[in-house]
Amino acid sequence: MNAMNIDLYMQQLGEQARKASRKMARASTAEKNRALLETAEIIADSRQRLLEANERDMEAGRSGKLDAALLDRLELTGSRIEGMVENLRQVASLPDPVGEISDMCFRPSGIQVGKMRVPLGVIGIIYESRPNVTIEAAALCLKSGNAAILRGGSEAFHSNQAIAKCLTQGLLTAGLPEAAIQVVETADREAVGKLIAMPEYVDVIVPRGGKGLIERISRDARVAVIKHLDGICHVYIDDRADYEKAMAITLNAKTHRYGVCNAMETLLIAESVATQWLPDLAERFREKGVELCGCERTVALIACDKATEADWHTEYLAPKLSIRVVNDLDQAMDHIERYSSRHTESIITEDYSRARRFLAEVDSSSVMVNASTRFADGFEYGLGAEIGISTDKIHARGPVGLEGLTSTKWIVLGDGQIRQ
Amino acid sequence: MNAMNIDLYMQQLGEQARKASRKMARASTAEKNRALLETAEIIADSRQRLLEANERDMEAGRSGKLDAALLDRLELTGSRIEGMVENLRQVASLPDPVGEISDMCFRPSGIQVGKMRVPLGVIGIIYESRPNVTIEAAALCLKSGNAAILRGGSEAFHSNQAIAKCLTQGLLTAGLPEAAIQVVETADREAVGKLIAMPEYVDVIVPRGGKGLIERISRDARVAVIKHLDGICHVYIDDRADYEKAMAITLNAKTHRYGVCNAMETLLIAESVATQWLPDLAERFREKGVELCGCERTVALIACDKATEADWHTEYLAPKLSIRVVNDLDQAMDHIERYSSRHTESIITEDYSRARRFLAEVDSSSVMVNASTRFADGFEYGLGAEIGISTDKIHARGPVGLEGLTSTKWIVLGDGQIRQ
Repeated sequence: MNAMNIDLYMQQLGEQARKASRKMARASTAEKNRALLETAEIIADSRQRLLEANERDMEAGRSGKLDAALLDRLELTGSRIEGMVENLRQVASLPDPVGEISDMCFRPSGIQVGKMRVPLGVIGIIYESRPNVTIEAAALCLKSGNAAILRGGSEAFHSNQAIAKCLTQGLLTAGLPEAAIQVVETADREAVGKLIAMPEYVDVIVPRGGKGLIERISRDARVAVIKHLDGICHVYIDDRADYEKAMAITLNAKTHRYGVCNAMETLLIAESVATQWLPDLAERFREKGVELCGCERTVALIACDKATEADWHTEYLAPKLSIRVVNDLDQAMDHIERYSSRHTESIITEDYSRARRFLAEVDSSSVMVNASTRFADGFEYGLGAEIGISTDKIHARGPVGLEGLTSTKWIVLGDGQIRQ
Repeated sequence: MNAMNIDLYMQQLGEQARKASRKMARASTAEKNRALLETAEIIADSRQRLLEANERDMEAGRSGKLDAALLDRLELTGSRIEGMVENLRQVASLPDPVGEISDMCFRPSGIQVGKMRVPLGVIGIIYESRPNVTIEAAALCLKSGNAAILRGGSEAFHSNQAIAKCLTQGLLTAGLPEAAIQVVETADREAVGKLIAMPEYVDVIVPRGGKGLIERISRDARVAVIKHLDGICHVYIDDRADYEKAMAITLNAKTHRYGVCNAMETLLIAESVATQWLPDLAERFREKGVELCGCERTVALIACDKATEADWHTEYLAPKLSIRVVNDLDQAMDHIERYSSRHTESIITEDYSRARRFLAEVDSSSVMVNASTRFADGFEYGLGAEIGISTDKIHARGPVGLEGLTSTKWIVLGDGQIRQ
């Protein structure tokens, strides 16, 4: 397709999505669940076809010299297909947010006012090479009564087309419009540029992927973007911390998984406990193979490299940790204020007033007391599913589940009331 | 100031606002209320100075040949100053949304998760010539723990500067940073362009004013915009409506006030009652001096002009009403789907299932049954105050009060929990 054709093609997807979104907003819970469960069956039955389509992408990837990590994300295996089936069933089992009515109350005028939860409309999802994201994103958009336009990485082109067929079939079987979930059928990058600049057809964009992709999309988008940039998460060990909790949480926050956004990247520790505890901690981290660097006071206590200014700004996503010894809670919060990406921070303390201050004053999407930053996750928070973690403050913040893909409208029940 | 200076000046305002916003987020309810009440006193005591400053604007306006409506909005009178004082006291009396904790629940992992309400940060308000908006906007931003940069119309320059002085004094007396509320001190239009394009300093823009202003800002803004475009509101009289309610609500929705966004602009009426009721209605509207136009079936029933396609798209904001006879609820909802600005729609019916369908299926920021569209208002809904009415779906929808100027963060209380 040339640029003009892509423009027209995307516009057509947009029009169809907008139309389908009207029907999806009115779809019953039973219809939406049926589409999810039918798709699960179809995916399970299409295992062979999906693996073949994926093999085409894998071959192209191998001959295009994609790196090993990318090839791993791209690969569909039997167990990953099982995971997709499981995911669809799980989303079907979640409560339907659409139509939920809350806060109904009577006003002095006699009207009764409250809010009803409604879908956003059309959601554009832009992601990279993991084909299972196609199912995850589609399932959440479908359950929340939205229409979706999905644009996966060009490396996963054939896999995504094969998955799209299953989704279409599932929607049709349930009597829902097939355009409710559309997968962009061109690998051309122009398509993304158009998708994020059609406010008349697309209500919100959810980009999932590397920082470069997300920054580019945020800069150019003409509609709202629910996004997540960095995860530079901090744990602060206060001098009134419990030693065992401090050790367990710090270790878990860093070493449970390295390549995740809610892993701790910087440890802050109060001076008066640093002398005693930091050597123990350093040993435990070294046992796990974690490379350490630290501020001057840290370097005086344990053998490690001196951290540079850049270290405090870095999301390592790797077995590396920067450590800073701070005077007190205030200095810890100042450091967080300056360097945090406002994703997740945790304080370890037994002190009531300091815990309360940390909760109130730290301005991040998740703020914790005596818990591992690794809990910052839609499943752990009970959302049942997660389309991403937002580090923005507008609309959705922190882990975003079904509710983040909805809005509300005011409803007013009257009995003939007029304004005086 | 030249363009370069304005750039630097706005950036400085932005930096100061960002810094002040940190302090405002931590300000206690008592401190914020004190600032509001002190400002109220100061405004009351500065009556003479405010009137003089306003007279300078009025003189300039009169010699600049501003039209009468604009001059009326620009004018400060004794009672308008009283209104500002009242407004400040009223906002002080509202509950503080900041710090509100909701939905705390235990998860199987043992952590306790919930949400805490927090300020958005820095809010930019762009408005036209009404100086009292300076106080209204400042009061809401202050109470919700935000910093604000206010940019009023250049016609109100001296009035706004005089009001700004009162605000600064009020903030300082309460021990809050004076930069928490800053009024832009240049009449240059470049300032607006810069204000809406500093995502590093400004979190959200609230434009208040004419459609042209709001469209321009939405197009060019680099941050979220809480906005309200049109108010093309519909009332649908179903054939199972109660006659008295239909008459009272229809008349109220159109004639209670004409120049407001929640006034009815189009009346839809079911065919089977139109024959009987439309002549009565037409007579009542004519008594009030409302000009009518209508579809073919309307024209066959009452003497009025034929409505053009443009009429269905028009927010008259005037004693004019377009009327369309429809077959049934479905056709009414189709019309609304096509022409509504998604502000407010109301159905008049005694039929349970139709009321329920209308509530569920109409996608507007307020959807009503048997009530006048004029109730779509922050005060009527119990918000206590209103910064505007949003016709967007992202972040805030419908009347926006203090809560619309806040976000939430997740809080997690643990006892040493780690992720398994």
